[in-house]
Amino acid sequence: MSQQNPIFIPGPTNIPDRLRRAMNVPSQDHRAPDFSDTFLPVLAGVKEVIGTEDGEVLLFTSSGTGGWEAAISNTLSPGDKVLIARYGMFSHRWIDMCQRHGLDVQVIECPWGTGAPADQFEAILSADTEHEIKAVMVTHNETATGVMSDIGAVRKAIDSAAHPALLFVDGVSSIASVPFEMDAWGVDVAVAGSQKGFMLATGMAVLGVSQKALSHMDEAKLPRTYFDFRDMLKANANGGFPYTPPLNLIYGLRESLKMLSEEGLENVYARHYRLAEGVRQAVSAWGFKLCAQTPDLYSNTVSAIFVPEGFDSNELTDHAFNKYGISFGIGLGEMNGKAFRIGHLGSLTEVMVLAGLATIEMAMVDLDYPIQLGQGVAAAQEYYRNTAPTK
Amino acid sequence: MSQQNPIFIPGPTNIPDRLRRAMNVPSQDHRAPDFSDTFLPVLAGVKEVIGTEDGEVLLFTSSGTGGWEAAISNTLSPGDKVLIARYGMFSHRWIDMCQRHGLDVQVIECPWGTGAPADQFEAILSADTEHEIKAVMVTHNETATGVMSDIGAVRKAIDSAAHPALLFVDGVSSIASVPFEMDAWGVDVAVAGSQKGFMLATGMAVLGVSQKALSHMDEAKLPRTYFDFRDMLKANANGGFPYTPPLNLIYGLRESLKMLSEEGLENVYARHYRLAEGVRQAVSAWGFKLCAQTPDLYSNTVSAIFVPEGFDSNELTDHAFNKYGISFGIGLGEMNGKAFRIGHLGSLTEVMVLAGLATIEMAMVDLDYPIQLGQGVAAAQEYYRNTAPTK
Amino acid sequence: MSQQNPIFIPGPTNIPDRLRRAMNVPSQDHRAPDFSDTFLPVLAGVKEVIGTEDGEVLLFTSSGTGGWEAAISNTLSPGDKVLIARYGMFSHRWIDMCQRHGLDVQVIECPWGTGAPADQFEAILSADTEHEIKAVMVTHNETATGVMSDIGAVRKAIDSAAHPALLFVDGVSSIASVPFEMDAWGVDVAVAGSQKGFMLATGMAVLGVSQKALSHMDEAKLPRTYFDFRDMLKANANGGFPYTPPLNLIYGLRESLKMLSEEGLENVYARHYRLAEGVRQAVSAWGFKLCAQTPDLYSNTVSAIFVPEGFDSNELTDHAFNKYGISFGIGLGEMNGKAFRIGHLGSLTEVMVLAGLATIEMAMVDLDYPIQLGQGVAAAQEYYRNTAPTK
Amino acid sequence: MSQQNPIFIPGPTNIPDRLRRAMNVPSQDHRAPDFSDTFLPVLAGVKEVIGTEDGEVLLFTSSGTGGWEAAISNTLSPGDKVLIARYGMFSHRWIDMCQRHGLDVQVIECPWGTGAPADQFEAILSADTEHEIKAVMVTHNETATGVMSDIGAVRKAIDSAAHPALLFVDGVSSIASVPFEMDAWGVDVAVAGSQKGFMLATGMAVLGVSQKALSHMDEAKLPRTYFDFRDMLKANANGGFPYTPPLNLIYGLRESLKMLSEEGLENVYARHYRLAEGVRQAVSAWGFKLCAQTPDLYSNTVSAIFVPEGFDSNELTDHAFNKYGISFGIGLGEMNGKAFRIGHLGSLTEVMVLAGLATIEMAMVDLDYPIQLGQGVAAAQEYYRNTAPTK
Repeated sequence: MSQQNPIFIPGPTNIPDRLRRAMNVPSQDHRAPDFSDTFLPVLAGVKEVIGTEDGEVLLFTSSGTGGWEAAISNTLSPGDKVLIARYGMFSHRWIDMCQRHGLDVQVIECPWGTGAPADQFEAILSADTEHEIKAVMVTHNETATGVMSDIGAVRKAIDSAAHPALLFVDGVSSIASVPFEMDAWGVDVAVAGSQKGFMLATGMAVLGVSQKALSHMDEAKLPRTYFDFRDMLKANANGGFPYTPPLNLIYGLRESLKMLSEEGLENVYARHYRLAEGVRQAVSAWGFKLCAQTPDLYSNTVSAIFVPEGFDSNELTDHAFNKYGISFGIGLGEMNGKAFRIGHLGSLTEVMVLAGLATIEMAMVDLDYPIQLGQGVAAAQEYYRNTAPTK
Repeated sequence: MSQQNPIFIPGPTNIPDRLRRAMNVPSQDHRAPDFSDTFLPVLAGVKEVIGTEDGEVLLFTSSGTGGWEAAISNTLSPGDKVLIARYGMFSHRWIDMCQRHGLDVQVIECPWGTGAPADQFEAILSADTEHEIKAVMVTHNETATGVMSDIGAVRKAIDSAAHPALLFVDGVSSIASVPFEMDAWGVDVAVAGSQKGFMLATGMAVLGVSQKALSHMDEAKLPRTYFDFRDMLKANANGGFPYTPPLNLIYGLRESLKMLSEEGLENVYARHYRLAEGVRQAVSAWGFKLCAQTPDLYSNTVSAIFVPEGFDSNELTDHAFNKYGISFGIGLGEMNGKAFRIGHLGSLTEVMVLAGLATIEMAMVDLDYPIQLGQGVAAAQEYYRNTAPTK
Repeated sequence: MSQQNPIFIPGPTNIPDRLRRAMNVPSQDHRAPDFSDTFLPVLAGVKEVIGTEDGEVLLFTSSGTGGWEAAISNTLSPGDKVLIARYGMFSHRWIDMCQRHGLDVQVIECPWGTGAPADQFEAILSADTEHEIKAVMVTHNETATGVMSDIGAVRKAIDSAAHPALLFVDGVSSIASVPFEMDAWGVDVAVAGSQKGFMLATGMAVLGVSQKALSHMDEAKLPRTYFDFRDMLKANANGGFPYTPPLNLIYGLRESLKMLSEEGLENVYARHYRLAEGVRQAVSAWGFKLCAQTPDLYSNTVSAIFVPEGFDSNELTDHAFNKYGISFGIGLGEMNGKAFRIGHLGSLTEVMVLAGLATIEMAMVDLDYPIQLGQGVAAAQEYYRNTAPTK
Repeated sequence: MSQQNPIFIPGPTNIPDRLRRAMNVPSQDHRAPDFSDTFLPVLAGVKEVIGTEDGEVLLFTSSGTGGWEAAISNTLSPGDKVLIARYGMFSHRWIDMCQRHGLDVQVIECPWGTGAPADQFEAILSADTEHEIKAVMVTHNETATGVMSDIGAVRKAIDSAAHPALLFVDGVSSIASVPFEMDAWGVDVAVAGSQKGFMLATGMAVLGVSQKALSHMDEAKLPRTYFDFRDMLKANANGGFPYTPPLNLIYGLRESLKMLSEEGLENVYARHYRLAEGVRQAVSAWGFKLCAQTPDLYSNTVSAIFVPEGFDSNELTDHAFNKYGISFGIGLGEMNGKAFRIGHLGSLTEVMVLAGLATIEMAMVDLDYPIQLGQGVAAAQEYYRNTAPTK
């Protein structure tokens, strides 16, 4: 029966019924003349969600990780210098990827729980008078720590340094759940995935690419074929795909965009804020601390929550899974054993969140955590009932 | 997004994913030689669930109401006397149906909140020395009041009176969720529906019929064709159906039986008891009263809960639906405005129940009910965490 | 793999993917305030398909047989006289049902392969100066023989006799596939089913009822509860259902109406004619005869085809099923062993029909029928390629 | 309605209902302890299908093209020499990919319509006494020309030359449809995709990798992260995935393997041969020629068919799609305009193939091709009826 429970990991997210149906399609011929009628509006719809009019949207059959590989291999060459701050597992992974692709990564080490250090970016870029740094890479929402960084501030830092570096943003666990302004923020490559804010199955990386980034395609020397922007753009221009596309996800994305549009992006964002804030009220009622160090860094898509000293967060998530059949996010990297995570993004309601909070409370009391049953739930209830949108 | 929330009405129940898939079948030829390979094991599987070896199982394309019409029209004749106690909306409905079919209904009026009055049955049957009463009709689980009656006691009453009356039992909201012993209890017709304990879509009445009841088929004078047992039995004997069968529900029932068997009927019943008891702990923590007057009558599939004096239960259920997108059962009949109902049957987990309790609490506080947020939730949490089965 | 093959029975029909998806819905509360938003437009949509503005549409959870029982039990009383012509299995069944419900059935025996005898109706009704005949019952499309009767001619016969009898029409295998004009033809009760022209799963009877028929509700003495129009109309008036409705079929019907409307009813009818005519071209090329005796009787939803003398049609359909995994309709009643049937209604294309024709040809040659492989296929191909609609 | 028609492209293939259902799953936590229970048996099942006991199976979220990129980037370094014969669009694409990844490709130009030139391989490898050639890459089934090459012969060629080169085989449109013997043929990397013989949606590359190939992982200098075998193997060893896996495809593959096993791989292969041979009988009846030059090269998964001189194959496929709503494969590369293709792999029956043949015949006659309607169909019918397996 436990498959009936919602999941509380920061992705893949709970797939709404409507998208389950939308993805359930028969095979069709992607070379048939009508494929473009389905496909091209999808590209246009994604542009609105990521806030670009000038950029291009590209879809690759891969997880978000593949999307990042596409981003770097189409714009950079071996030996190119890039600037990345490490403040969580996912920023760490981009550093690792860049290094494995032969890039020269200048790493800024930041405490986990902090976000993108705009001031340090500015200082380093200002000092880089030769413009050796080709790109700055930022994880918008660091899923490991529940930290949302201020991308606008990063853009300001780059501009203040009058530096031509490209700005790459990992929006995998932020896009379509919180505001994302690709053009306004001057983002050159934004990477999202089908399985988070778009509420679909895993399998498609969604990229927004600026004209500036595209202008680097031909000079970029990192080898790539599968992820080559050029093949994709050429095929897209004719309404096609360079190889067999994932039809189910394209149909799913079409419906996902319709759902987002029907709810209204502003309402989608407000809902994510509200659900997140209810979780934070519960955390506060328990007397626990978030990994995110300050309120301006709180993520509206995932909360990473420190367990009290002497407790093992892995035991907690295992227990919740084994006894109550419900999945919470484990602590990743530095946070392993120290924090658990509640994903609160995608197709979610306050009703579902309360189920999650009530369950983790049971698991905590089972393991002698110093909390009272109903304590966090009541705080969240109070918040939710006072903030419910009028319909 | 509210479609993602579970529902808490006493049926139709939340359909598990596995059954959603199982019912999603292409059309097939019900006259093809292989139909019986699917169909006949389904009949056998239902026999186990309702506890009969001697009886026959018949499936009709209809809701449970149609199942009842099948029961009476195949065994009784206009003017026949039947004995029914009215203690809720559903027992009331059978009285109404019998009267509209020209039966002579002897009604025992009982307070809503009580169950089948075995002692009164015995007295009346003992006094009926001419055996004019042809059938006693009992609602096993009175969905309107959350009362589960003791069918074994009714059987004992009939036997004590040494009366040949048939025993008809409405098991629509009990069968496959709580123990049902057709043969042991001497039930002559048991009626269930696809959309409750079997966790399927609405559309199929499931009947268990004893050989004794079948022996009345030919003499029964109530007209019927669609619901005629004889046509159905004749077709079933050849592995077929007398008219186009609801293939999706038959495939669904096949999988439902598999799920019930995999979990184990005893475990299914224990789960229903546990989920119900958690709800009752919450009700008690709120200081509210159940409609069911004594603990031996408490239903494990639905709880009808009185709201405090001066409150309107319809306002509560409307508010919960409109503000939080979640459906609870309204008060039916006499209980309208006075009680709301929480359905806790079918494919349900404690995680889901806690979501329902947390939501109704918000709705109650919104409407100034004299309860504290988290109060009922905490009581249920405490119960659930202490009673979780080891896996 | 054979589940991938289309079926060629005259219902249930091949369910299009879009309707498979539409029927795959989670449980919802049919007493929730929003149910009527879904339900009421469905009733209105059906009115258009059956051609009534004045009548009411009622949906019952049952197969079409249940729909017929609803029709007679809500308008007639035991002993009432009705007039029915028997010219196939389905007209036979209505006679049987009426007799089992205590009606006095005046039967006109017609050769199977002919249709409703308007002239005989007129003669009998004209002679019935006392207006003892309360209803005339006609099977629009006799599925057993592939005969489509002229309902307008029957109406004219009744009018010529200036007789007040109600006109009941079984449109189960005609409605939504061929033109049906309830108001124009003065039909009092029209019965359809979800699993034919509406292309859905089996489980819902769809009735159109005239105000004249409704005016008989209160005086009708046949007992009924489940199928009582009054309960249904009362509940419908408030946007509800008198008992748990089959949500999946209501959602399915909503989408089915949308599909029919998008294609355009005229185009739907033209497609059925064209597909049927292609089959008839094949039959003619084989040198076989249809059961329907004259071209004006040819059904556009099913063709019943005589096998040559000395052949057994059951062997043919069994062979096709066992060797090629494809279902054709068997000969029913008088036609058993003498004819097989090709259903060509619902969600069907010429591509699918050709698959059926090619397969039955293989089966026939396997059994030494005097035909050539490709013979019928070529005739159908020629017809289809010359008549394809421009898109 | 045309979505009801089967498709006749060589992939994606018609997805059977059972797999549509299997892929329709809710999101689950891929880091939960039970994920490996699902995942690991899938890897084992694929091993059987590709015929390896010693090798490893790896699944990447990508199309087959991504699988090839994984193959080369994990085993080779820039400047490495590889040997590839170009005899169609797909062998051409691997050449292109290798070149774009900085490999030194020795290309053997072969006429399209021929297969892998084992003798030329042997000559070149024998001459390569320095063993500069690191890998030989062969397209097992050249989808563009309908040519199936003899991989065993290629292995023999390599062995005869006593050359240590790795053998890479593109089995995207062959694996799970025709025999594939990875160990017996000494294949070092075999690449398949979810959307062909496995009958699933597009989105997963399926790789078999020999221990010999794996031994090159650490020295391989082509950059890769997303497709890195090491990350994948490390995660797989713990039953996990290095990033969010495509759960729906993994569940789908589990069911696909079950279907293949239930039918029996030998029967699956026999079915593909039989379906293909029926198509070839039709081609022969039309008097047309296959692109594949000799019978030993005929592919059992796709037939590429030359249209007569003076006709344009693109017009034919467009016409079939626009007028009859059915997709055939267009001619690719050199074959564009000269040949069309009929895909006959995956979930297919002779009934479906006959639909395709009948349709393409109509389209051809519409365009004045010198054929008779029913001509090819009759030839295929004759073949199919004589070769149907006894059930």
